[in-house]
Amino acid sequence: MRLVVVGGVAAGTKAASRARRVDPGMEITVYQEEPEPSISECGLPYLLSGMVESRDRLIARTPEKFAEGDIEVKVRHRVEAIHPNTKTLSVRDTTTGEAFEDRYDRLVIATGARAVMPPIPGADLDGLFPLRFLTDSDRIMAYVRDRSPERAVIVGGGYIGLEVAENLCRIGMEVSLIEGADRVALAYGPEVSERVEAELERNGVHIFTGEKVEEFVGDGRVRAVRFGDGEVGADLVIFGVGVRPSVDLAREAGVEIGATGAIRTDRHMKTNLPDVWAAGDCIETVNLVSGEAAWVPLGDTANQMGRVAGTNAATGEDALDFPGVLGTGIFKVYDLGVGKTGLSEAEAEAAGHETVSAGIESRDRAGYYPGSQKVFLKLIADAETGRILGAESAGSGADKLTDICATAIWAGLSYPDLINIDLAYSPPFGPALSPVIQAATILSGKFEQAKEGVRATK
Amino acid sequence: MRLVVVGGVAAGTKAASRARRVDPGMEITVYQEEPEPSISECGLPYLLSGMVESRDRLIARTPEKFAEGDIEVKVRHRVEAIHPNTKTLSVRDTTTGEAFEDRYDRLVIATGARAVMPPIPGADLDGLFPLRFLTDSDRIMAYVRDRSPERAVIVGGGYIGLEVAENLCRIGMEVSLIEGADRVALAYGPEVSERVEAELERNGVHIFTGEKVEEFVGDGRVRAVRFGDGEVGADLVIFGVGVRPSVDLAREAGVEIGATGAIRTDRHMKTNLPDVWAAGDCIETVNLVSGEAAWVPLGDTANQMGRVAGTNAATGEDALDFPGVLGTGIFKVYDLGVGKTGLSEAEAEAAGHETVSAGIESRDRAGYYPGSQKVFLKLIADAETGRILGAESAGSGADKLTDICATAIWAGLSYPDLINIDLAYSPPFGPALSPVIQAATILSGKFEQAKEGVRATK
Repeated sequence: MRLVVVGGVAAGTKAASRARRVDPGMEITVYQEEPEPSISECGLPYLLSGMVESRDRLIARTPEKFAEGDIEVKVRHRVEAIHPNTKTLSVRDTTTGEAFEDRYDRLVIATGARAVMPPIPGADLDGLFPLRFLTDSDRIMAYVRDRSPERAVIVGGGYIGLEVAENLCRIGMEVSLIEGADRVALAYGPEVSERVEAELERNGVHIFTGEKVEEFVGDGRVRAVRFGDGEVGADLVIFGVGVRPSVDLAREAGVEIGATGAIRTDRHMKTNLPDVWAAGDCIETVNLVSGEAAWVPLGDTANQMGRVAGTNAATGEDALDFPGVLGTGIFKVYDLGVGKTGLSEAEAEAAGHETVSAGIESRDRAGYYPGSQKVFLKLIADAETGRILGAESAGSGADKLTDICATAIWAGLSYPDLINIDLAYSPPFGPALSPVIQAATILSGKFEQAKEGVRATK
Repeated sequence: MRLVVVGGVAAGTKAASRARRVDPGMEITVYQEEPEPSISECGLPYLLSGMVESRDRLIARTPEKFAEGDIEVKVRHRVEAIHPNTKTLSVRDTTTGEAFEDRYDRLVIATGARAVMPPIPGADLDGLFPLRFLTDSDRIMAYVRDRSPERAVIVGGGYIGLEVAENLCRIGMEVSLIEGADRVALAYGPEVSERVEAELERNGVHIFTGEKVEEFVGDGRVRAVRFGDGEVGADLVIFGVGVRPSVDLAREAGVEIGATGAIRTDRHMKTNLPDVWAAGDCIETVNLVSGEAAWVPLGDTANQMGRVAGTNAATGEDALDFPGVLGTGIFKVYDLGVGKTGLSEAEAEAAGHETVSAGIESRDRAGYYPGSQKVFLKLIADAETGRILGAESAGSGADKLTDICATAIWAGLSYPDLINIDLAYSPPFGPALSPVIQAATILSGKFEQAKEGVRATK
């Protein structure tokens, strides 16, 4: 039995490793176009500042290590076509340029996502980079070393753009961030965006919101970025926007693509083609809160999906399933953790919910305990049922609050369930009542008021 | 309508504040025997080292502040008897010695817990202290100032003893801790106890386990502590053992006492006496995992109970309820967070469960992210149903892992629910797969093996 995995980052290598555990006798080959497999892509921004001290730290496992586990990983190999009728693949060794055919009994597609450069005049100038692969960070770091850029512009205020802004600022660059919407971190509510902008500005990052980039200006090499209201000097531009699922290979083979533009699979990670599974950043899943298809290219989710795809591909059965996601995510800018799970107020309303929300500012430790810092938490509940639909947090300990709320939403809890929940308290770890309990209690008051309002008008 | 609250720490003051919010017209008096109300007792160990810089920081709200909110708080007043037939109280002003009668329409008993000195020869020597009230820490700090003790002995290796050991060590004392059982932190499994002992010993605390204190030796003032295998010099002894619910007043009034020795109430915090509620460290509740009565004297739980008792006493209705606890707790010794929720393996087995457990050592950040530290997590599941019964964690981020697991247990989740749970990942906040997901995945493997074992023997 021969398993081929196309793509060797999080989902692909996880699928291969799981398949090996489930079936020690299976033949397993992973094709990876980039020069290294098993990259921790989420660590790339931290490589730019040297917070992660070497690129090797981001390579979780080398091809040699995979070989020890009896998994063949062929890097610099591009799969150019999948032929489902003959269960064969056209592969090109990009080092030699040589093409060859391979065969599979079972196939896992884990082609990930790629950066798309926006169609803006001047986008072909030197000094403009996406940041998606380790090879991108190699190129950026070589450019920084050789050209000593002093002024960086980040295009896009999503989490990658925000992380890159911090990391370039840390190595002494003058950093500007340009975002087309009226605030950064759009997936969050405005209270969180404000805090993120304040934290970056406090640390010297210039933020331009509500500004569309119109042109990159330069003479071979980028010198400035022009947008609606002005222009800002730039020796280096990083794109934090324009990531899309890599699905051309799959689409051409007849794999069904969903409305999000990513591959559609069932809960078992099976595509519409026989003996073909898919996992990771190239597929769509379901947001369990909204019930809608969602494309969520994140490393942890890719890992979980890879485990399911690898197990099912190895057994040939629907052994495991992946139920979907909540849209949980987190990032950090300087000292501010920023986390989210479920739906924002805007997303909940777009999904047809009337919402009741409570936002509070609390602390990460007892107020009297040394080093106590602020943290914001907002809970969003369905006005009719009281079910928790989403939570957002910004500050110290935002990761803990996000994960508590993610677990609550995962379990389908409502706000009354969170009022008496037995969480862990001690002065070094929080206020006597967790911010989650505080926010749920305020939600409870709002629901009471709403009920009384209804009673009063009757 | 007149509400009297007996006891003015966490549960009592919370009950009074809630009653005031629910019924702005109610007359509310709180009697408190100690000189200050509204004390954060959990902060007392940190006062000894100066980590909390002044005793005033631990007073959340003074009587003057309560008066502004139209709540009368009478400190240094001891309620000596409750007369339920006449709905009156015998009260003594301990400053003047004067006794008087008061009356109530509704009563909340929140008499808390007290320290009991063990009946050991020499326990009446100078230099021996419990640590329960702010007045205890006042006495200890006066003793430290006046007598400059160099050698401290802590009796008892529960969380208070462990916290006190750290805090006395921090101010340069030679600290020994004596525990009768064969390890400290007995509420946890042995993997956690080992880590706690190692962390304290690394910081210079001498630990004697399996040693029963036989005598305090001295000449008016304590000079040594004698136990089975030896003797250790001591200029100061702190008891981290012997806390009991303060129920004499309630018992004499005819309030029913439960098997744990604490007051029995229903879910609405109602006692068996009409118009009498009780809350906080003086009452027992139910452990929702074991289903058994549990006495859990903790500040956060007292707060939650106080809210329920205050609301119900103000409305005279069963407006709110308190469902019970999971036994969640956390403490810190130096850099080691130590948290627990639900049952330990031993507790689960005592409650009649066969268990399957998975203990893992993981990290609090991605391995490549600077400052990444170790954290241990153990999940304990019911062998038959797979339901999560308990979790223990020790290390950096133990608070987050404990709270995720507490939420999962609160919601009745089983190990398969935790394998694909959508928690927040980013390199500064954890490994790509949360230790909770890692441990649940290992549990899953153990359940699979057990099933195969059963199949093989059939």
